[in-house]
Amino acid sequence: MKVKNRKVKNLLEKYRQISLLGKTEAVLGWDLRVNLPKKGVEGRAAQIAHLTKIITEKWLDPEFKKLVEDTKLSGLKPEEKAILRNLRHAGKFYFKVPKEIIVEFSETTTRATVVWDEARKKDKFSEFLPHLKKLIKLNQIIAGHIGYRDNPYDALLDLYEPDLTAIECKKIFGKLQPELTKILKKIMKSKNYSEKSYLVEGELDYPKDAQEQLCFFVLRRMGYDLEAGRMDDISPSHPFTSELGRFDVRITNRYNVKDFREGLMVAMHEAGHGLYEQGVKEEYSATPLEGGVSLGIHESQSRFWENQVGRSFEFMKFITPIFQAFFPGQLSEVGAETLFSLFNQVRPSFIRTEADEVTYNLHIALRFELEEKMVNGKIKATDLPEIWRVKMKRYLGVTPKTDREGVLQDVHWSTAPMGYFPTYTLGNLYAAQFTREMQKELNLEDLAERGELGTILSWLRANIHQHGGLYRSDELIKKVTGKPLNPQHFLDYINKKYSKIYNLK
Amino acid sequence: MKVKNRKVKNLLEKYRQISLLGKTEAVLGWDLRVNLPKKGVEGRAAQIAHLTKIITEKWLDPEFKKLVEDTKLSGLKPEEKAILRNLRHAGKFYFKVPKEIIVEFSETTTRATVVWDEARKKDKFSEFLPHLKKLIKLNQIIAGHIGYRDNPYDALLDLYEPDLTAIECKKIFGKLQPELTKILKKIMKSKNYSEKSYLVEGELDYPKDAQEQLCFFVLRRMGYDLEAGRMDDISPSHPFTSELGRFDVRITNRYNVKDFREGLMVAMHEAGHGLYEQGVKEEYSATPLEGGVSLGIHESQSRFWENQVGRSFEFMKFITPIFQAFFPGQLSEVGAETLFSLFNQVRPSFIRTEADEVTYNLHIALRFELEEKMVNGKIKATDLPEIWRVKMKRYLGVTPKTDREGVLQDVHWSTAPMGYFPTYTLGNLYAAQFTREMQKELNLEDLAERGELGTILSWLRANIHQHGGLYRSDELIKKVTGKPLNPQHFLDYINKKYSKIYNLK
Repeated sequence: MKVKNRKVKNLLEKYRQISLLGKTEAVLGWDLRVNLPKKGVEGRAAQIAHLTKIITEKWLDPEFKKLVEDTKLSGLKPEEKAILRNLRHAGKFYFKVPKEIIVEFSETTTRATVVWDEARKKDKFSEFLPHLKKLIKLNQIIAGHIGYRDNPYDALLDLYEPDLTAIECKKIFGKLQPELTKILKKIMKSKNYSEKSYLVEGELDYPKDAQEQLCFFVLRRMGYDLEAGRMDDISPSHPFTSELGRFDVRITNRYNVKDFREGLMVAMHEAGHGLYEQGVKEEYSATPLEGGVSLGIHESQSRFWENQVGRSFEFMKFITPIFQAFFPGQLSEVGAETLFSLFNQVRPSFIRTEADEVTYNLHIALRFELEEKMVNGKIKATDLPEIWRVKMKRYLGVTPKTDREGVLQDVHWSTAPMGYFPTYTLGNLYAAQFTREMQKELNLEDLAERGELGTILSWLRANIHQHGGLYRSDELIKKVTGKPLNPQHFLDYINKKYSKIYNLK
Repeated sequence: MKVKNRKVKNLLEKYRQISLLGKTEAVLGWDLRVNLPKKGVEGRAAQIAHLTKIITEKWLDPEFKKLVEDTKLSGLKPEEKAILRNLRHAGKFYFKVPKEIIVEFSETTTRATVVWDEARKKDKFSEFLPHLKKLIKLNQIIAGHIGYRDNPYDALLDLYEPDLTAIECKKIFGKLQPELTKILKKIMKSKNYSEKSYLVEGELDYPKDAQEQLCFFVLRRMGYDLEAGRMDDISPSHPFTSELGRFDVRITNRYNVKDFREGLMVAMHEAGHGLYEQGVKEEYSATPLEGGVSLGIHESQSRFWENQVGRSFEFMKFITPIFQAFFPGQLSEVGAETLFSLFNQVRPSFIRTEADEVTYNLHIALRFELEEKMVNGKIKATDLPEIWRVKMKRYLGVTPKTDREGVLQDVHWSTAPMGYFPTYTLGNLYAAQFTREMQKELNLEDLAERGELGTILSWLRANIHQHGGLYRSDELIKKVTGKPLNPQHFLDYINKKYSKIYNLK
């Protein structure tokens, strides 16, 4: 990337330090979750806090701030403009929210995470309640400092998905929720519904090591560069992906010895994130164009590999003999059709992270509605458990008996500003729309069936990955598909796939 | 630790940041050597370099420097005095060597390490020569900036072992070298010498996993806290210990499937370092009293566990049935006497890291003599290979055929200032003198035979570990043993042990 503008050059030099320190912080965080001995947590927290402080100071360096805010866009090249746009976006948080509030929020989340964990274990919402109240208040204060037109929740959404608004979310979920609830009801009435399978119901074991080897095999087929990344087993913790450097993108996995589906789906999901990071133009590294466009676009990459590829019938045909080779005793009699049904079982469940493709976005719709109302002071934290139960019944037809399976299940509100959840749904929508476009150029079914996943990756690289943070998400979806985001593509995909599996009319 | 003095308090606050960043750098370094994907090296190097820069700037902060240099010692408590003493010692490097020289040295070592690695592989000293010449020059410049009375090498020795001088080293090696060479000659004439053993000569395999489990068993017996540490397999790289935090002390190991001795000896050696770090008073953490006294004292702890405990006949009696349990097919017929001989084989070898207790210090003597002369400009780098061969013949009776097995074997000169090697020998001497003292209070033989290693650790904790960096090494050895360091104790130990093994007269 050739940058001519003197001010942008200066900005890039300063940003490089922020980027290096950010990667360093990512190493501390990755190691915390993968390797840290039990008693080391407090010391590590102090190291991370100190680094965060240094990074914040770099953002608040008056010279840097002035360059970010005052550099004129006119006459700049597209890449230079994008650099400024991304810095200004990140600056909304760093420049506008007072340092004391950032510190208070950070301290509150640290405590809240511990209390939340306890409260969830004990199923005692009342213990978490005072912390949640304080978090809501701080979310409102943060939104106030960032600024918004009508809805304070917009300020928070924008932190995760630039320019996303509550109105847009309402439109999306307003369309998705009734349709998905309808499909779910049809599925639950179908005669294929909820068939139990001896394969994953507790009798058979699928040793971890073999599962891991199978996952590494699939990673290689996907084109994941294991000389610029790793995959570590962190069972039973929640898997994640970390970029610790341009050529050091690490994914994690957890394996369920009773259910061989989980490890593979996690591997493909996290590798989807990882491939995105591995595919960004090298010259963008350590600049504000590194990493992906937004959380929504990032999630589209993970969900695409997990669902559009991993859960397709064609990929099942490819992977079935591999599964049989790794687990001859358990799976040698099992065909691709059986595995396809098994990987696409729909069941309304209480827990979001275990949800299938049909119900997943209903979980998100619920969280979006609660968050938006909380930030706007329209519902009280005290009433959340009851509202949760009512909405679960309405959307999914099931009512959790405990708060542990209800309002206490997610860590998100204890760790970061609200507004994160909707990006999960955006990811699903972008994935469906990208897939539709890809299918005009590639025979996706054929490639999946032959395990030629590298060709799929090449399309993603050329159309999405290489650009890093050059475009905004609305620009990217238009550039790739010619149209703005349209939730109908996702609904079409779901309808087609699940009508076939469950013989729906 | 209660600190009353306002200036010392202020210093501690500032030092805490240096300490936190130092641990962060240690995490980056540990991960580099244990986990880093191949292509991630360059990115990691940039992260480390940036952090080093920030740490150096903290040291050079004028207010901090002034506090370190100007705070008066009179009226301070012993701990406060020790804090200042340690800071002033570290300050010799940071305050006196100009930043440009530090940067130039750092760049030179980075390049030299790569060239050295290649030169060693190709056995081409000529390729390394120009880099070595530059390194010698920079060592002389650094010594000049630090300052010294008679001998520039003193300035470098002091970096690793405060107050150690070339004169002192000459006294020590002058006593050790002739005696050890004499013992070696006797051993080589003994009829037990160089018996081959089918156990480690290539027929039998000792799987890594079982070796690792056995090592973990021994670590637990030693009292190593695995909730405040880890042991990772980095075969075939060179093992090391890292302190990443007060409760996060990690060791590494390498296993040789053909030779079961290596993994256990490395585990005990590295755990010796690790136990020292785990045993320092908690209140010293993130202060200049954290960590150990000096490299020499540190090495005494690793060598004590490896040699005085691990290679003792009594420990062999304890560990033999454990070895048999882990390797029933290979070792069930093998007695403690056989293992004892096997773990204490003396053979003059070319490679320092493979040397036994008798020959080890002869390798160090040679390096000390070369370093001291190089820094004083008394020998030319060009002549090193030949001098190496002559001295090896004189001290060990063998002549390496290649430079790879000679002057090119160690990485040290490519990575840091000279003066490090003598601390290895100091470690052996301290270990022998500490052991002699310990034996007045504990029945070491009996404890080793019963595997009651925790009692041994308690003695080390009480007498050495807990104090961290409170005393100087000469103070500590006097405090613990009542006498200054005396190499005779080591010679007595070697004479006694090896006379028995090899039936020497």
